[in-house]
Amino acid sequence: MNDNISALTRRLESENVRFSTDDKSLFDASLDHMRYSFLPDVVAYAECGEDIGKVLKTANELDVPVTVRGCGTGCSGGSVPTPGGIVLDLGAIDFIEIDPVARVAHVGAGAVTANVDAAAQKHGLFYAPDPSSHKYSSIGGNIACNAGGLRALKYGVTRDNVIALAAYLPNGEKLKCGLPVKKFSVGPNLRDFFIGSEGTFGVVSEAWLKLLPLPQSKKVAIAFFDGDEQAFEGIEKIMRSALQPSILEFMDADTIGCVRVKEPSLEIGEGKSAVLAEFDGFEPEAEASVDMFFEVLAGCEVRRAKDAAEAEKLWSVRRKASPAMYMLGDSKISQDIVLPFDGVAEFFRFYKKLGRELNLATPVFGHAGDGNYHIHFMYNGAEDGARARAVRGMDLSIKKTIELGGAVSGEHGIGFLKSKYMPLQHGKAELELMRGLKKVFDPKDILNRGKIYEVTDTSGMQPLRGVKLPWD
Amino acid sequence: MNDNISALTRRLESENVRFSTDDKSLFDASLDHMRYSFLPDVVAYAECGEDIGKVLKTANELDVPVTVRGCGTGCSGGSVPTPGGIVLDLGAIDFIEIDPVARVAHVGAGAVTANVDAAAQKHGLFYAPDPSSHKYSSIGGNIACNAGGLRALKYGVTRDNVIALAAYLPNGEKLKCGLPVKKFSVGPNLRDFFIGSEGTFGVVSEAWLKLLPLPQSKKVAIAFFDGDEQAFEGIEKIMRSALQPSILEFMDADTIGCVRVKEPSLEIGEGKSAVLAEFDGFEPEAEASVDMFFEVLAGCEVRRAKDAAEAEKLWSVRRKASPAMYMLGDSKISQDIVLPFDGVAEFFRFYKKLGRELNLATPVFGHAGDGNYHIHFMYNGAEDGARARAVRGMDLSIKKTIELGGAVSGEHGIGFLKSKYMPLQHGKAELELMRGLKKVFDPKDILNRGKIYEVTDTSGMQPLRGVKLPWD
Repeated sequence: MNDNISALTRRLESENVRFSTDDKSLFDASLDHMRYSFLPDVVAYAECGEDIGKVLKTANELDVPVTVRGCGTGCSGGSVPTPGGIVLDLGAIDFIEIDPVARVAHVGAGAVTANVDAAAQKHGLFYAPDPSSHKYSSIGGNIACNAGGLRALKYGVTRDNVIALAAYLPNGEKLKCGLPVKKFSVGPNLRDFFIGSEGTFGVVSEAWLKLLPLPQSKKVAIAFFDGDEQAFEGIEKIMRSALQPSILEFMDADTIGCVRVKEPSLEIGEGKSAVLAEFDGFEPEAEASVDMFFEVLAGCEVRRAKDAAEAEKLWSVRRKASPAMYMLGDSKISQDIVLPFDGVAEFFRFYKKLGRELNLATPVFGHAGDGNYHIHFMYNGAEDGARARAVRGMDLSIKKTIELGGAVSGEHGIGFLKSKYMPLQHGKAELELMRGLKKVFDPKDILNRGKIYEVTDTSGMQPLRGVKLPWD
Repeated sequence: MNDNISALTRRLESENVRFSTDDKSLFDASLDHMRYSFLPDVVAYAECGEDIGKVLKTANELDVPVTVRGCGTGCSGGSVPTPGGIVLDLGAIDFIEIDPVARVAHVGAGAVTANVDAAAQKHGLFYAPDPSSHKYSSIGGNIACNAGGLRALKYGVTRDNVIALAAYLPNGEKLKCGLPVKKFSVGPNLRDFFIGSEGTFGVVSEAWLKLLPLPQSKKVAIAFFDGDEQAFEGIEKIMRSALQPSILEFMDADTIGCVRVKEPSLEIGEGKSAVLAEFDGFEPEAEASVDMFFEVLAGCEVRRAKDAAEAEKLWSVRRKASPAMYMLGDSKISQDIVLPFDGVAEFFRFYKKLGRELNLATPVFGHAGDGNYHIHFMYNGAEDGARARAVRGMDLSIKKTIELGGAVSGEHGIGFLKSKYMPLQHGKAELELMRGLKKVFDPKDILNRGKIYEVTDTSGMQPLRGVKLPWD
């Protein structure tokens, strides 16, 4: 490898591609939000699409693995260079152009999601996908793992908001994947091969994204229930009604218990679970939707926000959920499972019982309208064997999820941290087909090696502690 | 081939798959809406997914080509058995099950699109894609060509409304392609490989479709302009505003000229073009949108429907468009191109001039918000050389479309009738990749042979005349 790496750096130099090999650059490019660090040999910084082509062609010829990196906010290790080699950083390809007539944003893969939305808003438009990382994550990363977010219930996930892409193959060739027009039925649309394949098929350099007129108004309400099962019944009532919330967030009794203690001013009763709903659109419609939310949940404690300050107060229940749960353990193992509606109650009985058996807290919040729940096993890092128990709890929970017809991941993707679950989720025929497709795109397997299609045992691994990332 | 066919029919018999070889069955399965007839050797009728698996496995072993058929409403020859062999008819797999909580329809590939919508409506929900064939076309066919429709402007095309699929590979293996949950980030989603690939990768047996709450209200308005260019300026104003029509249909002055003569009661002025808009949703919002439509188009002749009868009258302008244009010629060559907004005016200047040069009428209607225009060259079938002139006009128009950054097809797909345009639309790298992918799915090339990836010269071919199809 080392000979290859020096040949590689000579080539990059001669082709005027910017790169680093100093310790800090290598470390910064070695991990994502999950903090499992694998050092690359080189970090190459693409300033434009041509740079991507140059790096890939060179790496492909020299058999050096390439791991693509946007902002490194991922939760599955997708951008972590497990095999060493090159990290190809796309952060500098961050242009954003808005076409207000076509209602399309043309952006570089490195453009930060929230910046795209902000640029659209100047034209009375918005970009709908809002993963919780949106202030720090890039569009390229969102496309790689098909990121979701809170508003996915009404507006869909990243896939539903990507019109066209440009991408590079490992041989350095540039592909047009669809066109920046709203309808395109001209053979298989290569766009869809890149969304959700986590940089294993090719490297997305730019994207054309769908924009929508900004809703006139947003109204927020929150309902408190006597327990989790009651909340699930409430969610079912909402989904059976004519309501179309833009956001519908569930927080279980364990999570709300933490929020309640952390924020007594919220005056939340003991043992409550909660569902927060946002309705957007034409002002009178959003108002009427909140009225209907009250009707549908008659008998529950429902609060509505009368103004922006009250809306922010209701929202704070949800915003505090993730940090507050550290009351229950200083570390966590979490996943973003998806459950079919008819499996939710059974799953939660299983999962909560499992938590009690393992003596680990199991707080949950999630995007209830999509059945997309962030489940957690909290533990104390210093406690011997606690992490192993949490890993075991998660493995059993994932198995149960799949038995009930659910999915391992709704929005974070597989990377290497979840590739062990692929054979549980997919049959032999599907996995063989995926590997066959990977081979067509990337015959020498240089792209994001060790992810998705290969099972990586991470049970003996530990995330780094004390590393501060930009979004911490 | 003949030995193979008798071996095939013996196998189908022994496996209890229903099939026909009589002349009428073969003829009925030999053509689609475009009426280019290619006789198959056998028509097999799948009653369930297992039958699909049996037919494919057998055909693959015996090297017999298979062309899949839904309802045969296609406009590109996608379901026409150009190489003979088997037509695999999925019409009997037409089950429809509605889950009103998940807001999902689980349907067989042969389910008729309008029937899915009707079943959803019983639960206060609807299925959004509305290709003009929706009363006769099947979901499987809609998925094959990624069908669009009028409401695609607000609700997207078929791709945007498919949650998951099940499909069979040529070796008879069944694949799960995604799961019937709203979020799924577990490796490349095989669902998206089947949408728009026109049965060349595998055979979709069932689908899970997204349903939405029925809008409370629909409001219709129509604007008349002094000519086509004025209409395009109006469309741009609409798209620049905060309006979000569910439908926005353009009819050019040639088309409106025919409608005007056919339906004098509509009281349309001479030389007018038109844009029909529908706004759906909360009643006061739809009303307010029509008000805004008037404001945005101040100075034009705009009419609004005050009740259902008036709405139907405005709609009749659009409904008459396609039949009325036969005033300009008894035959037509048409395509469903897509144009970027900034290329529309230039394209139409080119295309209208071309029509004058070729002495052929060029009426157009289309889904203006998506830039998806149905362009026509009308001719008289009995006139010597007229058809050749129309073919030439269309070839030049497609070339211009692509030069301007547009697409050959927005919703009809490629089949064999448009495969000659593939090398114009896609580069060498894209086409090679598509062929490589096709090989992974279908190594023996038995599925929908002669479509998309192979150029078929159809300039010497003629559609059959006098064939009455169910939707005529």
